[in-house]
Amino acid sequence: MKSDSISKPLPLSEKLRRGNLLAADCPSREVLKHMTSRWGVLVLLALETGTFRFAALRRAVGGVSERMLAQTLRQLEQDGLVLRVAHDVVPPHVEYSLTALGREAATQVRHLADWIEVNLPRIQENWRASGN
Amino acid sequence: MKSDSISKPLPLSEKLRRGNLLAADCPSREVLKHMTSRWGVLVLLALETGTFRFAALRRAVGGVSERMLAQTLRQLEQDGLVLRVAHDVVPPHVEYSLTALGREAATQVRHLADWIEVNLPRIQENWRASGN
Repeated sequence: MKSDSISKPLPLSEKLRRGNLLAADCPSREVLKHMTSRWGVLVLLALETGTFRFAALRRAVGGVSERMLAQTLRQLEQDGLVLRVAHDVVPPHVEYSLTALGREAATQVRHLADWIEVNLPRIQENWRASGN
Repeated sequence: MKSDSISKPLPLSEKLRRGNLLAADCPSREVLKHMTSRWGVLVLLALETGTFRFAALRRAVGGVSERMLAQTLRQLEQDGLVLRVAHDVVPPHVEYSLTALGREAATQVRHLADWIEVNLPRIQENWRASGN
């Protein structure tokens, strides 16, 4: 509930710096890549349900390797969507959760994911129809 | 406005076949890959604004190669999201548009894209803060 800036309203000058994904050189494409990478989507969906330690998160996201999960978490942390808290104990105890900005991002991703999950039967019908 | 099945209500048996993206072997992951690939997202966003011929679509989606655009369109067509209409004239005239299912998909993707574009300044602040 802290450590991010979502509660401050953006000044107008910031609003005018809105990105444009259709422009090849816009840095928003980097964010799109992180949020819509296979593992980015699934990590956001999993973290929307609560705080996880690394091993538990890896179990929640079927099929992810340790390396890919670590890389995905690092990117989302740098974007300010994931909060990594290392408790100062032995053995080390590290927890991952969404920031307020990350919860907003996860909501968007979940709507997309819900749509895909609900409409999968229709899309599979199209696969059969196109002989795929 | 035809050629897809979005207007028929799904029977209950179909609703129960809803996908689960967090399961490693669920075919919904294939749909996620198509819809959230860099070019999948951008093609859906561009086609949401109208019907395009190939060359015009390529200009609308900054930075896409001919090969990647063709592959992306083929995948989205097989999923039933994009309609390809080849007019029987010389020289060939092919048009791409969204199906009703594709318009639904594009709406979800646009909400995600809007969120990214609007929040880019905040995310860039986080990049600076993390020294990235």
